[in-house]
Amino acid sequence: MSEKRDVRSGITLSRHNYGKCGVRLVKVFRDTERHEVMELDVAVTLEGDFGASYTVGDNTSLLATDTMRNTVYALAKERLTSSIEEFGLVLVDHFLKIGPTVQQARVDITSVPWGRIEVDGKPHDHSFVQEAGERLATVSGSEDGSRRFEAGLDGLTVMKTTQSGWQDFFRDEYTTLPDTDDRILATVVTARWEYGDCPDLDYDQLWAGVRDRLLSAFTDHYSPSVQNTLYRMGRAVLEEFGEIEKIHLSFPNKHHLLYDLGRFGLENEGVIFQATDEPYGLIEGTVERTS
Amino acid sequence: MSEKRDVRSGITLSRHNYGKCGVRLVKVFRDTERHEVMELDVAVTLEGDFGASYTVGDNTSLLATDTMRNTVYALAKERLTSSIEEFGLVLVDHFLKIGPTVQQARVDITSVPWGRIEVDGKPHDHSFVQEAGERLATVSGSEDGSRRFEAGLDGLTVMKTTQSGWQDFFRDEYTTLPDTDDRILATVVTARWEYGDCPDLDYDQLWAGVRDRLLSAFTDHYSPSVQNTLYRMGRAVLEEFGEIEKIHLSFPNKHHLLYDLGRFGLENEGVIFQATDEPYGLIEGTVERTS
Amino acid sequence: MSEKRDVRSGITLSRHNYGKCGVRLVKVFRDTERHEVMELDVAVTLEGDFGASYTVGDNTSLLATDTMRNTVYALAKERLTSSIEEFGLVLVDHFLKIGPTVQQARVDITSVPWGRIEVDGKPHDHSFVQEAGERLATVSGSEDGSRRFEAGLDGLTVMKTTQSGWQDFFRDEYTTLPDTDDRILATVVTARWEYGDCPDLDYDQLWAGVRDRLLSAFTDHYSPSVQNTLYRMGRAVLEEFGEIEKIHLSFPNKHHLLYDLGRFGLENEGVIFQATDEPYGLIEGTVERTS
Amino acid sequence: MSEKRDVRSGITLSRHNYGKCGVRLVKVFRDTERHEVMELDVAVTLEGDFGASYTVGDNTSLLATDTMRNTVYALAKERLTSSIEEFGLVLVDHFLKIGPTVQQARVDITSVPWGRIEVDGKPHDHSFVQEAGERLATVSGSEDGSRRFEAGLDGLTVMKTTQSGWQDFFRDEYTTLPDTDDRILATVVTARWEYGDCPDLDYDQLWAGVRDRLLSAFTDHYSPSVQNTLYRMGRAVLEEFGEIEKIHLSFPNKHHLLYDLGRFGLENEGVIFQATDEPYGLIEGTVERTS
Repeated sequence: MSEKRDVRSGITLSRHNYGKCGVRLVKVFRDTERHEVMELDVAVTLEGDFGASYTVGDNTSLLATDTMRNTVYALAKERLTSSIEEFGLVLVDHFLKIGPTVQQARVDITSVPWGRIEVDGKPHDHSFVQEAGERLATVSGSEDGSRRFEAGLDGLTVMKTTQSGWQDFFRDEYTTLPDTDDRILATVVTARWEYGDCPDLDYDQLWAGVRDRLLSAFTDHYSPSVQNTLYRMGRAVLEEFGEIEKIHLSFPNKHHLLYDLGRFGLENEGVIFQATDEPYGLIEGTVERTS
Repeated sequence: MSEKRDVRSGITLSRHNYGKCGVRLVKVFRDTERHEVMELDVAVTLEGDFGASYTVGDNTSLLATDTMRNTVYALAKERLTSSIEEFGLVLVDHFLKIGPTVQQARVDITSVPWGRIEVDGKPHDHSFVQEAGERLATVSGSEDGSRRFEAGLDGLTVMKTTQSGWQDFFRDEYTTLPDTDDRILATVVTARWEYGDCPDLDYDQLWAGVRDRLLSAFTDHYSPSVQNTLYRMGRAVLEEFGEIEKIHLSFPNKHHLLYDLGRFGLENEGVIFQATDEPYGLIEGTVERTS
Repeated sequence: MSEKRDVRSGITLSRHNYGKCGVRLVKVFRDTERHEVMELDVAVTLEGDFGASYTVGDNTSLLATDTMRNTVYALAKERLTSSIEEFGLVLVDHFLKIGPTVQQARVDITSVPWGRIEVDGKPHDHSFVQEAGERLATVSGSEDGSRRFEAGLDGLTVMKTTQSGWQDFFRDEYTTLPDTDDRILATVVTARWEYGDCPDLDYDQLWAGVRDRLLSAFTDHYSPSVQNTLYRMGRAVLEEFGEIEKIHLSFPNKHHLLYDLGRFGLENEGVIFQATDEPYGLIEGTVERTS
Repeated sequence: MSEKRDVRSGITLSRHNYGKCGVRLVKVFRDTERHEVMELDVAVTLEGDFGASYTVGDNTSLLATDTMRNTVYALAKERLTSSIEEFGLVLVDHFLKIGPTVQQARVDITSVPWGRIEVDGKPHDHSFVQEAGERLATVSGSEDGSRRFEAGLDGLTVMKTTQSGWQDFFRDEYTTLPDTDDRILATVVTARWEYGDCPDLDYDQLWAGVRDRLLSAFTDHYSPSVQNTLYRMGRAVLEEFGEIEKIHLSFPNKHHLLYDLGRFGLENEGVIFQATDEPYGLIEGTVERTS
């Protein structure tokens, strides 16, 4: 099979990419007795002119994904020194410089949160306990020099036990759900936000700030819908952090069904709920600056 | 908060969508003693003019996701009669007709394969055993009347124990992987293909045909790379099925590492491998018709 | 800390064991062009006199779990030649011979089923597709020479669309479920059976036979309860296979709820069901020979 | 089929049990504006004289698992007022009183930890965020009046970045691992402990105390092996909490492999590690009081 024949046949390779996922790395900062630890899960994705490897089996322009793995560990030794966003940039820059065929590089990093174990109220020097949730960063770059920074979080599970309702919605012949002005609202916050083109951002501080702001905005209002709470949370982040251009939020509605205890002669005014996973509503939206 | 104030602040809701996921449905066709069974997992996603629900908590144009669930079950009773693609279309048409605010509807269906239990070589009338893999369909539509049909499969795990290599690839200072002309090639095929605008397609027959063709194309060549095998498989599908416009394939490279038995005085010429999940290469590509 | 101090304090180490899990191995049998492939996930567990390692940090009698891993791969080269039960025995024998402190060894093996890809109706020589379900084997041995063989299967998901009911059960003040004589019965069969002390068993043939018998016994009766169906299936296996002493079955009841379509003016006589994962009934029982 | 024929055939039902799993319950305590919330996943298992349901399909002595579900929700309304251990006892007592055939009841409860969201340093009244890990309790009882209380935790992932080694272990022909006196030690602590027969235990306080003691004992020594650290942690718990009779600990060894950076001219003295899931060592042991 040759590329020529492909053209004649009217069949072609269009978009393609490849890379390495699940590169799991722990770095211990041990310059002093008080160690720091970072745990990352890194994925590298390259786009470019790799067509010949697909169509005619010519590998000469392909970097092995095994090499990508080695590269992540090797560069982490000297260059993983602060935020995951900055390390992502180091990797993107490296892969774009590899050769003429790499046109775009994207690095996705998930960071696992480790806190210090406290002993007698004192944080320990080298012992850690894993916390809930995950921090995310994506750095993308292209051969023309452009770079894009995206941060995010996943696995932030939150619940309000009141100050949430669902009323006055559109009803049709298949609608059976009654209105309520008091229900449980629970979701797993997945957020992704994009930084503008600002120099010298403190990504760690920004990330912690966004997480705090999402949490506080979740609490500060009566929620007439997941949609409205989502918008309020996104808007609060943009209002506080001018460095952020837009934020995308994805909220699965973890439904809690009031259990029918009337059958057993018991009242149940917002006390006993069945927690369910399926089916679930999924509410998504992007809040961004107008220019 | 009003939309006006939003505008003044320079912060706005852009893309947004919502829907119901994980609607799990079993339909039993019991007109005769020989039952048929279908098991679906349905997700509905709507896009449209739902901005007021996000920005000012006005739910009047929102169909409850609970209603979407009811609708899926109700319409399945009379209208789930053949392929999941055709049922997806029924649902898309329904949701687009609901009201003025729905501009786009997408229905994703995953179908769980059930085969008949064979007793003494005879397929049983009403007893089934679940098979590996999943069938996928996505139907999208918009208020302008356009409809798009996508089918797919997931969880098709395949392996070649020879006739696969990885040689003559690009090498840099972080490359340590040696060339090989005989390795195990294993992947989990995830495929998504798009049908052209053809009337009266037999989606069930097409799906089975594509699955067969993917499998046979996986076997029929020496694989110089996952990339090349991916392209060959996609190309084979397009060559056989003129109804298909393009196909996207995503292949995680399930690496099998030749175990170093030389340390124990044992030869190991392609016999004993360590199967690994992480890290993994991920090779993706779209093959399509040129027009 | 010394063992003496342990005794004085009235605190002691009682039962303890250690080992290696997740040793994932693929063996390719390539003597002819028609390859065979086996994929195993092996776990090794040792019990014995390892107390000093726990109580005083004396490792001298501990085999590293890393060595167990090496051993599994190394012994697989020459000794994994037929069934997983026989390979389990090889491993158990090996670890019991290691040293004076190993008193009991247990090897758990999960085997992943690979079938040949068929091309034009012909099974391919070296291309395989993974099938549903898993085969299990556990071999245990002790320093006194006794050996025990257990086989099993997991992930065999089955469904009957009729010929199943649930009636005349015990009712109390919290019972709301109505009687039914026609429901869906679905479960994931997990089975574990124990072979008696017979020489030269054909474990592969037996395993396939038990799987077939479980499936056929699932189909051959009206099921008044999961309990009764479980018993019938276990009993059928013991009746057919004299080599088996007892069988334990564990059946999660994958409930399918008849969806209430009457609200929409639709009949639903056993046609449309909601499939659920939680909560689920769990029915277990052991059927064995009386002696 | 009759029980008689069963006896003649020499095949019998031996141990059997059934129950309901995955009963997921959220209770909101809303007497004041400061809500409390508990989220439980409850499983009920009954043992007793249910043989006739298995062997001859006689359901008259079987409580439906659906009734068990109703019962958990109903009793939670009035009786889930303090610890999950005390609620487990309520359920065990209830099911033992149901009828003459229930001989043993066991209730397993997993509790999901929810902490308050802090806004401006102030814990919120009704907004919560899910924390890592799980609390476990098992209450068992039999018709003779005996009751047994077990508590536990799962998902407590910990890591030490130094003060851990693995030396002077037993070596055989398959041993390749070198000695080390400085490695990462990481595990997911799964603990199960049993309370003695003490009146009026404060289970919540005890659970928090055990968790703290496990964490602090993980930090306070050089670890010559996972085995020794496990023993020290169990012993520390028994020394501090006289109410606890024994504790079982299960530690998967989450191996971190020092990445070979020498190939790239880089030193790597305990800085860059590859985190792995498979294979993993599994170390288990029970520490208990001698009587």
